Amino acid sequence: MVPKALLRELKRVAGTDHVSVSPVDLEAYSYDASPATGMPGAVVFPADTRQVAGVVRACAEAGVPHLPRGFGTNLSGGSVPPEGGVVICLTRMDRILAVDPGRRTAVAQPGVTNLELQDALAPHGFFFAPDPASQKVATLGGNVAENSGGPHCLKYGVTQNHVLGAELVLPDGGVVRVGGQALDPPGYDLRGLTVGSEGTLAIVTEVTVRIMPSAESVATLLVIYDDVADAAATVSSIIAAGIVPAALEMMDAPVMKAVEESLACGYPLDAAAVLIVELDGPRAGLAAQVEQVRDICTAHNCRSVRAADDPAERDLLWTGRRGAFGAISRITPGYGVADCTVPRTRLPAALAAVAAVADSHGLGHGNVFHAGDGNLHPLLFFDPGDAEQVRHVEEATHEIMDACVALGGTISGEHGVGTEKVGAMHLIFSEDALQLQRALKDAFDPRGLLLLYRT
Amino acid sequence: MVPKALLRELKRVAGTDHVSVSPVDLEAYSYDASPATGMPGAVVFPADTRQVAGVVRACAEAGVPHLPRGFGTNLSGGSVPPEGGVVICLTRMDRILAVDPGRRTAVAQPGVTNLELQDALAPHGFFFAPDPASQKVATLGGNVAENSGGPHCLKYGVTQNHVLGAELVLPDGGVVRVGGQALDPPGYDLRGLTVGSEGTLAIVTEVTVRIMPSAESVATLLVIYDDVADAAATVSSIIAAGIVPAALEMMDAPVMKAVEESLACGYPLDAAAVLIVELDGPRAGLAAQVEQVRDICTAHNCRSVRAADDPAERDLLWTGRRGAFGAISRITPGYGVADCTVPRTRLPAALAAVAAVADSHGLGHGNVFHAGDGNLHPLLFFDPGDAEQVRHVEEATHEIMDACVALGGTISGEHGVGTEKVGAMHLIFSEDALQLQRALKDAFDPRGLLLLYRT
Repeated sequence: MVPKALLRELKRVAGTDHVSVSPVDLEAYSYDASPATGMPGAVVFPADTRQVAGVVRACAEAGVPHLPRGFGTNLSGGSVPPEGGVVICLTRMDRILAVDPGRRTAVAQPGVTNLELQDALAPHGFFFAPDPASQKVATLGGNVAENSGGPHCLKYGVTQNHVLGAELVLPDGGVVRVGGQALDPPGYDLRGLTVGSEGTLAIVTEVTVRIMPSAESVATLLVIYDDVADAAATVSSIIAAGIVPAALEMMDAPVMKAVEESLACGYPLDAAAVLIVELDGPRAGLAAQVEQVRDICTAHNCRSVRAADDPAERDLLWTGRRGAFGAISRITPGYGVADCTVPRTRLPAALAAVAAVADSHGLGHGNVFHAGDGNLHPLLFFDPGDAEQVRHVEEATHEIMDACVALGGTISGEHGVGTEKVGAMHLIFSEDALQLQRALKDAFDPRGLLLLYRT
Repeated sequence: MVPKALLRELKRVAGTDHVSVSPVDLEAYSYDASPATGMPGAVVFPADTRQVAGVVRACAEAGVPHLPRGFGTNLSGGSVPPEGGVVICLTRMDRILAVDPGRRTAVAQPGVTNLELQDALAPHGFFFAPDPASQKVATLGGNVAENSGGPHCLKYGVTQNHVLGAELVLPDGGVVRVGGQALDPPGYDLRGLTVGSEGTLAIVTEVTVRIMPSAESVATLLVIYDDVADAAATVSSIIAAGIVPAALEMMDAPVMKAVEESLACGYPLDAAAVLIVELDGPRAGLAAQVEQVRDICTAHNCRSVRAADDPAERDLLWTGRRGAFGAISRITPGYGVADCTVPRTRLPAALAAVAAVADSHGLGHGNVFHAGDGNLHPLLFFDPGDAEQVRHVEEATHEIMDACVALGGTISGEHGVGTEKVGAMHLIFSEDALQLQRALKDAFDPRGLLLLYRT
């Protein structure tokens, strides 16, 4: 429970109707899409930047920890509140403030979902490159906080490459604008530092993003394999050939089975793995690229290459890919999802390591991931009610991280560090580098009241 | 003069032959490509990271300010030492450590020039996107420090978008690695914070960059105009049509005259302005794009569109563009170059403002710039021996900055803030935002010994 004086102040700032301490709400905001939980003391739904600043100032004065969140699709525990803290939920700040095709920018509040922005841009012939699988509900504030990726980030870059500026509420309640509309604004890159800082440095209350013209034409291929290793080996061959697909995704048999059972999207049930290869660009050049990809896949023993020329067929493939995590829930009472990245040439070794780790712990597993980026998302199936299995999943997740780091990879690709992986930061950072990160955190938030992961 | 004990220590660390206090060397390292100067107390040429760390530690212990530099092409005074400070010149650290087309990365020391890296990548069919006009001598360390742009950054992004990781020597002499080989490394984006920090946070001793496959085909157009405003208006029409040229440069009559007199590259001497429009991509789609650009230019009253199909002719155009600043030196004893950015739709207004300001101060002027980015480089001609003219140039430069900011622009596009524009930071940043930048500087360099600009 938060102090009574703070509660009064929160209600004064945001309005009585927009502050909740009801057990139902506290429970609802105690978790995100990760297994972690933490019971907050209050949830506030501010309407604008001024209210966010007032809420932060009130929390700072009361010395109560707090954190921002959107719809909570976070997979690494980044939206899980500190016990008794204040959740600042930004979903009421859901307006798109400007779409400017001439300047190639859009301005939006943090509670706008990724898909709402895409839908607003499409009639202008534009899109926003980051497209996390959860885009229907993932908010832009969350995209910025987590530096979200998505299938199309292989070609177009992650959120970091598409945020031009932001309005921030600092931990002392001050409001600053960072970045701007230009490619290289002067001063330290506070914009870049904010993106991916997971809500630990400041709260994003407005974001200016770069928008891109939609490609003139798109070709989507479903490439079917009888051997996972062949599919994995194809990935680096495509990139090494100088082709940058718009997306290059991989899915293995257990995941395809789950997807087909729940969504019936046309994935083969008798294959070991598929690649989804999407190529885009000017119409004239596309056919030649498709042929080149076809040849590379054939050289890697694929069973067949199916072109989804029809937009409906293409949408269906993507519906399956985006719905994969949800579909998995139908075949297992629980699953853990890791988020490691390896150099793409090491994908076959990384997939073998994942299988070996899962087997050694007696856990079922599946893979669906951004293969072109080398960004694995191994899924480990388990029963959350079985303490023994929970322990095995935790151990296996750490072993998978270790294996990926040993292959020259890293512990996160796009889901962030969060509460989940903060303990693994030492695997990839020296004590000096961690100390520097702590110093930066202190520069923004000397009292450590805004969402603090302890490393 | 630096303290004797420090000089001894510098010689112990870097070797007697690689520390200089000779008046000739001190003079040579007292300036860069900007008008600013500052006389250092010593110049050190370390051979490796360990020596850089040793030099920094020695300076820190002696309390003597210091700064890193390369070949000093800096246009904003960023390589100008504090009086009596130690210059750490990194040009001996000039090795390319790895080129990995499969991973699309290259690793190099900071003293490698941009062109040396390009030359090493070309045989593999790759390039490094940032291509500052000074690329023959501009070092990668400087590119990272200044977040360098260049003609091809319109399509491919600035240095910030192409640096994956770096090794840094911190102001206390500690060595850390930031970023990595992955698109979205975990933790705060120290990599991003380093890029563009102008040597004020840490010294880059190794850099890992993203390399890109060379385009299959290139078309370069020289578009000739009788009216500067028509050329400027064409720029935003091309972008608004959904075309992203590889480069979209503009040059006006005074600059073309200077270029032709010194380099004879085939620019028209009787035109008001030209655009250089370079398109690249798969061969198949290029012709249609060229036609589309031709139509847009015609609609904006261009006199003619000349295609430089022959590689030799194209190289000549680029030689002229890259050599423009040098060529200007032949027609004026001195020139000041500003580096403002405006939304590209405001280019006609910005060019009119530049002309009006120059005229009101009785200064000759010319323009050569990255039009597609809205990144102006107005050149003001003057005689450095004429104190009255020097004062006019300073005033005019500030008036141009004010005008660009009023048009929704900013005070730097790619040259950095440096000593030159540090006083103008308040034009675009609130006191809160500046305070945050100071706090970040303190987090890295609490004693302020590593190149400190005072805001």
